[in-house]
Amino acid sequence: MMIKLTKVTASAPGKVALFGEHAVVYGYPAMAGAIDRRVYVSVEERSDDLIKIHAMDLSVPGIVLTIGGTGKDVAVETDYRRIMDAVGYVRKAIEVTSNICDLKKGVTVHIRSEMPVGAGLGTSAAVSVATIMAYSAVGGHALNSEEVSALGHRVELEVQGAASPMDSAVAAHGGILLIRPMLREASLTPVKAELGLPLVVGYTPRECGTGEMLRRVRNLRDAAPESVDSILCSIGKVVSEADSAMRSGDLRRVGMLMNVNHGLLESLGVSTKKINEMVYSARSAGALGSKLTGAGGGGCMISLCPDREAEVMTAISVAGGTAFISSISSRGVCIEKGESI
Amino acid sequence: MMIKLTKVTASAPGKVALFGEHAVVYGYPAMAGAIDRRVYVSVEERSDDLIKIHAMDLSVPGIVLTIGGTGKDVAVETDYRRIMDAVGYVRKAIEVTSNICDLKKGVTVHIRSEMPVGAGLGTSAAVSVATIMAYSAVGGHALNSEEVSALGHRVELEVQGAASPMDSAVAAHGGILLIRPMLREASLTPVKAELGLPLVVGYTPRECGTGEMLRRVRNLRDAAPESVDSILCSIGKVVSEADSAMRSGDLRRVGMLMNVNHGLLESLGVSTKKINEMVYSARSAGALGSKLTGAGGGGCMISLCPDREAEVMTAISVAGGTAFISSISSRGVCIEKGESI
Repeated sequence: MMIKLTKVTASAPGKVALFGEHAVVYGYPAMAGAIDRRVYVSVEERSDDLIKIHAMDLSVPGIVLTIGGTGKDVAVETDYRRIMDAVGYVRKAIEVTSNICDLKKGVTVHIRSEMPVGAGLGTSAAVSVATIMAYSAVGGHALNSEEVSALGHRVELEVQGAASPMDSAVAAHGGILLIRPMLREASLTPVKAELGLPLVVGYTPRECGTGEMLRRVRNLRDAAPESVDSILCSIGKVVSEADSAMRSGDLRRVGMLMNVNHGLLESLGVSTKKINEMVYSARSAGALGSKLTGAGGGGCMISLCPDREAEVMTAISVAGGTAFISSISSRGVCIEKGESI
Repeated sequence: MMIKLTKVTASAPGKVALFGEHAVVYGYPAMAGAIDRRVYVSVEERSDDLIKIHAMDLSVPGIVLTIGGTGKDVAVETDYRRIMDAVGYVRKAIEVTSNICDLKKGVTVHIRSEMPVGAGLGTSAAVSVATIMAYSAVGGHALNSEEVSALGHRVELEVQGAASPMDSAVAAHGGILLIRPMLREASLTPVKAELGLPLVVGYTPRECGTGEMLRRVRNLRDAAPESVDSILCSIGKVVSEADSAMRSGDLRRVGMLMNVNHGLLESLGVSTKKINEMVYSARSAGALGSKLTGAGGGGCMISLCPDREAEVMTAISVAGGTAFISSISSRGVCIEKGESI
């Protein structure tokens, strides 16, 4: 007998782009890993057709938003732009899942995040993916992680205009993935690193959002097409060499290639003075490699620093960032809890 | 009647690498310009076969070195490593010129520099080129700037092991040159920029010398050949696009490409925390573009900043550098003064 679930909590991990961000948007490979900090989304069926979203527990001021069944906002209890962005992903995730699963339900959504939001840790993809998983489960559908990944990417595309398939794939599958974008969809290969990857993640508030950073690279490419295309190609080469270093467990080489990748991102104009200071401080404190991660314009940087985690955390703090120790996690999107009436 | 000169003073300009440093060593084009600060070398015939070198006026403690005709040092009155480096170029320049011109003279050499030595401003090439010009003139030979440039490059190659042909060419010819290294020698094309190039040069003591920085890039290339070859190729593309921007007088585009080139140098691991701070501070103060110049590891950075020279100088000083306003000069190596007994 199938039990009908009325409340489902799904979670999805945050991600760090290890190699290849930005270039992946132009068809080059990239490597990203799921981290051990997650986003939790619970979806509960309502008796009306409203969608009510609670995001009280994010690392930014909370919000309660009630959306009418027609898609028209009926009540915003607080209004902060960054939260509105996050809420945009939830709305779109529900819309996309509704269409695919032929599902139309009023729901109450609760979102909780263990990591900073909008910092380049793929929280928007994690929220999207976890929402898709939980909402479809409430509707009685069991999507597999391939399907959730593809729908998550569609949500990101529709909300942002352009998006890497990386974030949604990592949020859905977990672990480290090598992503090769293809004409119609991305090919995903799990990377089994021989050794663990001891990371310190440093965070600083972003000066610009992902969409703006993607636009900047596109504008730079319009202005200097030969240079930028060659740089994007160079990033692709770094990813290939990093893949081989990762598979052979050569952390020193992985770190060296992180440094190279950081410079290439710098040449695309997506780093900031503050992120550079954090990156250089981490290297001085003994990191094997350090780079910005994600779209840039502030946000997060990562350092590979076996046995030097504490020193690197301190160095990043002194440079004005917030840092936490993290590790790669193999857990992709999953249902944490399902309840029936 | 030909007058025999017994004392000749020659001068040669310093240079800034505008685009393409490091990649030029691997066969890609580069662009460099002579600046309005010069090195002066006077060579005076002696009655014995000694070579006596005075470098009292460099921006480092002075030295008097007397070298026996056999090449064996006989008297070092002070001994500072950086000066010994400069003196190495003078000795080699005299040796190379002696062989080419079939000339064997004891001489007293006086060196004076208007710019910091060993900072990436091409002082070693300027010293070499000016020494070749002055020493050959004392021997009754009139070398043209092509010949002086080629000999200067040979001096740099023999002293350093590896060297870009850029520095000696700019010291010999002046102006802005686009250099395309060929199999046997470099092809040089003057770049007639439509507009002047208002530069601010920032300086910080170097952590490593040119030879060490060249080795580092070579080691990085050995470790990650595909990535580094692709990056060197990208630098070549930047140089081509900068050449077209320069010829059309589009300073904004020139500045943008300087920023791109800086990131690529960063990816090769030749920048430093301090240089990056100076580069970012200059950009914040309104520079159209800013990059390290020369081999890196500290040394100099340049900023393109029309009408913002004072602000950018201040910003670089606040970031801990020493700055001066400079301009591109069309004067190559030349004889300032010839005296006969």
